[in-house]
Amino acid sequence: MAFDLVTLGETMIRLSPPVPQRLEQTAVLEVNIGGAESNVAIALARLGFRTAWLSRLPDNAWGQRIARTLRAHGVDVSGVIWAAGERVGTYFVEYGSPPRPIQVLYDRADSAMSRMQPDDVAWSVVQQGRVVHCTGITPALSPSCAEVVRMVMQRARAQGALVSFDLNYRALLWSPAAAAAVLDDYCSLAHLVFAAWRDLETLFGVEGSPEEIAPNLRQRWGCDILVITLGDAGSLACDGRQVARAAAYPVEIVDRLGAGDAFDAGFIAARLQGRALDGALRYGAALSALCMTIPSDLALVSAAEVEAILTQDGPAIRR
Amino acid sequence: MAFDLVTLGETMIRLSPPVPQRLEQTAVLEVNIGGAESNVAIALARLGFRTAWLSRLPDNAWGQRIARTLRAHGVDVSGVIWAAGERVGTYFVEYGSPPRPIQVLYDRADSAMSRMQPDDVAWSVVQQGRVVHCTGITPALSPSCAEVVRMVMQRARAQGALVSFDLNYRALLWSPAAAAAVLDDYCSLAHLVFAAWRDLETLFGVEGSPEEIAPNLRQRWGCDILVITLGDAGSLACDGRQVARAAAYPVEIVDRLGAGDAFDAGFIAARLQGRALDGALRYGAALSALCMTIPSDLALVSAAEVEAILTQDGPAIRR
Amino acid sequence: MAFDLVTLGETMIRLSPPVPQRLEQTAVLEVNIGGAESNVAIALARLGFRTAWLSRLPDNAWGQRIARTLRAHGVDVSGVIWAAGERVGTYFVEYGSPPRPIQVLYDRADSAMSRMQPDDVAWSVVQQGRVVHCTGITPALSPSCAEVVRMVMQRARAQGALVSFDLNYRALLWSPAAAAAVLDDYCSLAHLVFAAWRDLETLFGVEGSPEEIAPNLRQRWGCDILVITLGDAGSLACDGRQVARAAAYPVEIVDRLGAGDAFDAGFIAARLQGRALDGALRYGAALSALCMTIPSDLALVSAAEVEAILTQDGPAIRR
Amino acid sequence: MAFDLVTLGETMIRLSPPVPQRLEQTAVLEVNIGGAESNVAIALARLGFRTAWLSRLPDNAWGQRIARTLRAHGVDVSGVIWAAGERVGTYFVEYGSPPRPIQVLYDRADSAMSRMQPDDVAWSVVQQGRVVHCTGITPALSPSCAEVVRMVMQRARAQGALVSFDLNYRALLWSPAAAAAVLDDYCSLAHLVFAAWRDLETLFGVEGSPEEIAPNLRQRWGCDILVITLGDAGSLACDGRQVARAAAYPVEIVDRLGAGDAFDAGFIAARLQGRALDGALRYGAALSALCMTIPSDLALVSAAEVEAILTQDGPAIRR
Amino acid sequence: MAFDLVTLGETMIRLSPPVPQRLEQTAVLEVNIGGAESNVAIALARLGFRTAWLSRLPDNAWGQRIARTLRAHGVDVSGVIWAAGERVGTYFVEYGSPPRPIQVLYDRADSAMSRMQPDDVAWSVVQQGRVVHCTGITPALSPSCAEVVRMVMQRARAQGALVSFDLNYRALLWSPAAAAAVLDDYCSLAHLVFAAWRDLETLFGVEGSPEEIAPNLRQRWGCDILVITLGDAGSLACDGRQVARAAAYPVEIVDRLGAGDAFDAGFIAARLQGRALDGALRYGAALSALCMTIPSDLALVSAAEVEAILTQDGPAIRR
Amino acid sequence: MAFDLVTLGETMIRLSPPVPQRLEQTAVLEVNIGGAESNVAIALARLGFRTAWLSRLPDNAWGQRIARTLRAHGVDVSGVIWAAGERVGTYFVEYGSPPRPIQVLYDRADSAMSRMQPDDVAWSVVQQGRVVHCTGITPALSPSCAEVVRMVMQRARAQGALVSFDLNYRALLWSPAAAAAVLDDYCSLAHLVFAAWRDLETLFGVEGSPEEIAPNLRQRWGCDILVITLGDAGSLACDGRQVARAAAYPVEIVDRLGAGDAFDAGFIAARLQGRALDGALRYGAALSALCMTIPSDLALVSAAEVEAILTQDGPAIRR
Repeated sequence: MAFDLVTLGETMIRLSPPVPQRLEQTAVLEVNIGGAESNVAIALARLGFRTAWLSRLPDNAWGQRIARTLRAHGVDVSGVIWAAGERVGTYFVEYGSPPRPIQVLYDRADSAMSRMQPDDVAWSVVQQGRVVHCTGITPALSPSCAEVVRMVMQRARAQGALVSFDLNYRALLWSPAAAAAVLDDYCSLAHLVFAAWRDLETLFGVEGSPEEIAPNLRQRWGCDILVITLGDAGSLACDGRQVARAAAYPVEIVDRLGAGDAFDAGFIAARLQGRALDGALRYGAALSALCMTIPSDLALVSAAEVEAILTQDGPAIRR
Repeated sequence: MAFDLVTLGETMIRLSPPVPQRLEQTAVLEVNIGGAESNVAIALARLGFRTAWLSRLPDNAWGQRIARTLRAHGVDVSGVIWAAGERVGTYFVEYGSPPRPIQVLYDRADSAMSRMQPDDVAWSVVQQGRVVHCTGITPALSPSCAEVVRMVMQRARAQGALVSFDLNYRALLWSPAAAAAVLDDYCSLAHLVFAAWRDLETLFGVEGSPEEIAPNLRQRWGCDILVITLGDAGSLACDGRQVARAAAYPVEIVDRLGAGDAFDAGFIAARLQGRALDGALRYGAALSALCMTIPSDLALVSAAEVEAILTQDGPAIRR
Repeated sequence: MAFDLVTLGETMIRLSPPVPQRLEQTAVLEVNIGGAESNVAIALARLGFRTAWLSRLPDNAWGQRIARTLRAHGVDVSGVIWAAGERVGTYFVEYGSPPRPIQVLYDRADSAMSRMQPDDVAWSVVQQGRVVHCTGITPALSPSCAEVVRMVMQRARAQGALVSFDLNYRALLWSPAAAAAVLDDYCSLAHLVFAAWRDLETLFGVEGSPEEIAPNLRQRWGCDILVITLGDAGSLACDGRQVARAAAYPVEIVDRLGAGDAFDAGFIAARLQGRALDGALRYGAALSALCMTIPSDLALVSAAEVEAILTQDGPAIRR
Repeated sequence: MAFDLVTLGETMIRLSPPVPQRLEQTAVLEVNIGGAESNVAIALARLGFRTAWLSRLPDNAWGQRIARTLRAHGVDVSGVIWAAGERVGTYFVEYGSPPRPIQVLYDRADSAMSRMQPDDVAWSVVQQGRVVHCTGITPALSPSCAEVVRMVMQRARAQGALVSFDLNYRALLWSPAAAAAVLDDYCSLAHLVFAAWRDLETLFGVEGSPEEIAPNLRQRWGCDILVITLGDAGSLACDGRQVARAAAYPVEIVDRLGAGDAFDAGFIAARLQGRALDGALRYGAALSALCMTIPSDLALVSAAEVEAILTQDGPAIRR
Repeated sequence: MAFDLVTLGETMIRLSPPVPQRLEQTAVLEVNIGGAESNVAIALARLGFRTAWLSRLPDNAWGQRIARTLRAHGVDVSGVIWAAGERVGTYFVEYGSPPRPIQVLYDRADSAMSRMQPDDVAWSVVQQGRVVHCTGITPALSPSCAEVVRMVMQRARAQGALVSFDLNYRALLWSPAAAAAVLDDYCSLAHLVFAAWRDLETLFGVEGSPEEIAPNLRQRWGCDILVITLGDAGSLACDGRQVARAAAYPVEIVDRLGAGDAFDAGFIAARLQGRALDGALRYGAALSALCMTIPSDLALVSAAEVEAILTQDGPAIRR
Repeated sequence: MAFDLVTLGETMIRLSPPVPQRLEQTAVLEVNIGGAESNVAIALARLGFRTAWLSRLPDNAWGQRIARTLRAHGVDVSGVIWAAGERVGTYFVEYGSPPRPIQVLYDRADSAMSRMQPDDVAWSVVQQGRVVHCTGITPALSPSCAEVVRMVMQRARAQGALVSFDLNYRALLWSPAAAAAVLDDYCSLAHLVFAAWRDLETLFGVEGSPEEIAPNLRQRWGCDILVITLGDAGSLACDGRQVARAAAYPVEIVDRLGAGDAFDAGFIAARLQGRALDGALRYGAALSALCMTIPSDLALVSAAEVEAILTQDGPAIRR
């Protein structure tokens, strides 16, 4: 097993006005990259795990920039397919101070990734993954992408990997009904499912207490562990024996994007380290809190920094 | 009636250090424009109303920049007088995090606008205004400006327009006594008067509850509607039949300047749309709240965004 | 005739790293707009002519930004079609200091404009144009755009407008053979044709002296005036009676993009002012030279500045 | 007495990413200077006092920049020793939004100042100080610096100056045990001692109520006045007769660094003006609060601004 | 004699778009200061001379910033008059790449300095000047300023100082005829006159070879030394015995403003050091060349750097 | 052989004011990395070769940033030694427009790399290098570094690798005499020696024509190939059979630093591709020219871009 985690998905160029400006008034856009799956791969690589990311990228300055960023953080990108003359998706993020919402303007249609076919998957890399992680964004990109994710999850399961899946509903990509119909099946392919409570409400109409709902959903999908994130209200995980809970860490938010991916990465990292359910939730919450203090989708954080949060140790100024 | 609103006033170049820097330390100044009346005209134009702005500008890069900005947002500037060789007013805005105040350093003396004469007014434009809006800033600029505003309000009244007036006391331009003596008369020329409670205290020594004071002031000035803004405490309006109130929307403030103008614009827009007094206060409050989240005096906001605030609808991240 | 010039085409968001950085290394992208046809409309509007621009734009922050920019400079955009949910084209401009070339990375496929249909054309605006201007870029966008341009040129011709056409070959959009086949016809629909000598070589294999070739091409297309630009070597125009020439003005180039459009605008402006062929070439050359000193595709220049170049008047520092 | 205050210490170049970025991601570092002792000298000079600063600087762009900055604010630097070919210390400040701490990365080893010898001290300047101020940072730099500070404090005491000392423990420079052993003696050399309660806990293991501890410590060191700062909980001072207290002013913190130095400067300024203990604490608290609203270690504040805080006077916007 | 040079004049805030942007398009303005006389004082102070600057400044953030900048470079500003509530002049500098000129937009009317009266002059400072330097800009500011300069030059002459005067014609302040009438007299009050050949042509209609004209002009004004600068063609000086010449150093110009002031400062410095006429011209040329490589009106240069230019010593990269 | 090239050396954080500002005036410093050896490794990795870099780095934000940058470009850094609590070298680069020189201010003493010992070398990585490359900078860092380089070159030679050495004299690190004494020996250990003609003059006092000197030096050092670079005058290489020459490509220089390293990388790349001496010189010259157009020490260039220079193909604008 060369990799602790292998993941597959779309990563885009993120362009955002300097906070707190609006798109309409800004003279410049800050350039970053972001993608739910690569965010997880990068976060785990920074924590010391061996990770690989599969995707399809155009062979231009933007595609190469994405690959270079992942490589910088230690993620293996040897399985990326390079597509001449195609485009990379972009998204414009406009931060809003309340009551103005954060607004994301996607320009991702017909990206190189959206044209991925099963033949484009580097199966030899998939085979080497101890954990294989996918999200509910990719099936929304195109029918071929939906097929790719299904095959990746099925084969990973068959080969004995732990299959992880984050529901990750994107309202700008498809309707709740369309997403629910598709994603229900994908959840059934995973051993470990992450879902935001808000998405569960939107897609599956769940009502009531998350503690009560979680075991039912876990049973419905037949997964080993179901993790539900509740925003400021923390998170919970159930594995058939127990429902563990963890609070969210208080945070002065700088950039909310990527927080969910950081949570996933933290939870997976903690499980790979052998931590219990509640410890894994806390680890995810700590990494997620740190991620929200950094102006990037990426969790530019070290394991030592996560530990410092967990132990609540140290002064507010280190000098 | 070609215009829903015609307004007249001074617009200046606003130069501000990047927040949170001080004037004395900054390497650069950010360039924007601002003027109480043009702020109203721009906000209304963006909401879909036809507006025109009258003023006097020097025919140099700054004067043209002001006109171009108004035109960009759809405000008619064909009635502007171009004055060769004169100067535009500037103001330097230094944001202060509490307890440090926001400090405005005006350098506006002897601007092209301050030299405006009644003959400079494009009366043909004034005649086409359904609403004609002025503020208490302009009479403070010069005697000729005071005369211009008086004539505009008188003629607008005579021609059947709804005359709107915002008290807008500027302590750096004149003393409370001088302002009170002058502005009392102007309020009597208006159908619709906007006043900050703080200014009413400073100029007219009002005391007690705004709900009780409002009807008295309305009677004193003989106006149809008196609107009083109370900062975080919201706003109220009285029209002889009732005193309506609205709360302020909670907002993480980015740039407080222009909030009052946005409120005026929102209230006027709502009245033009036929909303009741309380609905108009809420509409003004929503536009004002959004304006404070944007680093500009201008309310760079769309009607749809105001509606979303009013209906409290939608998630904090739209993606 | 409400408009001196009406034009139709695609305008995109231009994103460029601060010079001299590369796309791969930049932390920010500067935001501008650019489009061959709107560049001409803006330049002419700034020179005092009444112009209108027709296009199809998505109703989002970028589409509105494009429209606002044109409006700021005085271009009428009332004929623009607003397309909900579609995308605006973008292009990334990476400046290169020689021997590194300027590289343009287009991401314009499937833009709102590329989906324009003849029914989307505001024919009432076209009818009011004294000059109607199109370019060889638009036919390359899509078959429907090719049809739109053809119809606009034909109807304009029929209604008695002066039809102007810039060959404007874009190698990244189509092959020389494909372009030559199509654009030959469009040149035949125009009274005034602009062509870069380099494009004539690439598309039509012309060889030898531009002075000799020009009359033949003019005859082939049956146009009134053929203008050929020769880069540093200046420009020439032939109208059947004479071949006029003008030198290029020496310029320390800041931003080469938009120089050709500025030349077109200058030539057209000069003709509308009644200048002779050689005077019009010089006017175009002067506007083009100024445009290249400004970091934007737009010719942010006034008529007085063009005149100062033509008369070579004034010191290098004006203080 | 030419100077109200003479101080000696190390000043460094402060390099910090634009907030809220991390060192690892930033494209630029903002350049400032900072040093506990020069911060005090600058703050007092700005309040109208005559101050001088002694140090050792390399004769390069950074050393000169430090001297120029002090001179700009009116601090006498004629006693600085210029050391050819040596280095200035630098420190990298990474702001962290909670729960991420502010992290300071020092690169100050072997700086020109750390090599200061007693012979380098401009004793003629020391002799002219009404107050002579040192801090517990300097003894940690090198044995020769420890000797320099001891001699400065002893001679100042002998010549009749008021000797002031801020404990200022820096955990990145030495251990609590090492610091406690050394600094205990220095406190005994001072008439006026400033200490953060947190440092007292760390170094001397004090426990319980500051009000009770303060008189004991004062007696132990034999100083006239002991001032203890308690962060958000305010400050207290005891002089043998009384224990005065002052609250901290509520502040929206922009840059916490330098707040302690501003407090010292404010307290000393107030004493020089003849204010009582509690008035001096309040003055220190006001200057400290303003300092935290400014993105710099320096208290870029005027006496009038401090007075406005003390009198709680004036609106949040001055226009 | 406490000062090697005392000078009096107006210093303004210089606001300029980042090169190569235009005022109309820039999002920010870079903040610097500039004034012909303070430029000379700063340049000389940096070369090691004791200098003082007299002026009148408003007591606000901009006035203080000007004083702080001079103090930072070691110029004595104790003779500055602080004027409450007045304004500082500003000027907007728009760099132009040829053929676009550099354009300066002055907004300096009614500045604090323009209101200076003879009683405002710190005569005790004037008396301590070995050289007293004025320019032809100040008399153009106001009648009282013209009187101030006349009195300063007369008294300096009377007290035995070397009186220096730079003609410095500013076309945006007055007409050639008005300036010639006034400045002719001032030149007669000076021992050392600096004049740009271009200004001599404009004001006095000189024609022919500078070598021939110089002695005549020197005789006309009765000055000891007349220095004429010729731009790229270098400079010449005549003292009655000889006409010395020096070439200009080749320079890749970054910022042309302040080059003349740097030349003056270099020439005066060299004379104070006892250099011959031609050596002084070369010194002035070297300082001027370096000044033009720096984005500021100020000659941010050291004596060692000037020497390196004079000796043409050293590689293009120092590492 | 896992690596086409293995190299060892120091890489530093490069801090530079935005061009054309001076260190003394800049508000920010741009952050990059640079090191002669890692520049070569990065350039080759980008051209498609497998490279590894050995060094010693502190385990802090700067050390990690250096490693991440190399990894991003595909350089193996698994052999780097991580040193807790140590420092990374920094250098400040101030660009100078002629006649002002580029000035480099090193702050590199006592860096983690300067403390490298032979035991720190990852010999297993050295063994896998087809080419092993060192420079004359490393022996100047410390005696232990000198020993490290000697051992690396000796063992690489013994194991059959091609040993490459760039003389790279740094005048700010040691005197010509000291450097000549040491570097003479290192040249004798290499198969391939790169030297700037200027350095040969400085260190070894060579005189006359490079073509005549080259064979003598090659014989003296017993190397297979000696490459001499001559700045604008191009380069030459001699291998015992011939002296090949190549011209330099004309270039508008943006950033001269790193040009020599890019030349080395280009020459080595070309040799690995089997090109002849003159072809390799041209390849080096092309890569070097492109490197100088990019604001970084790194040659952020692709193989395709080098080929385009070699074939002089393509327009100045690619669109």
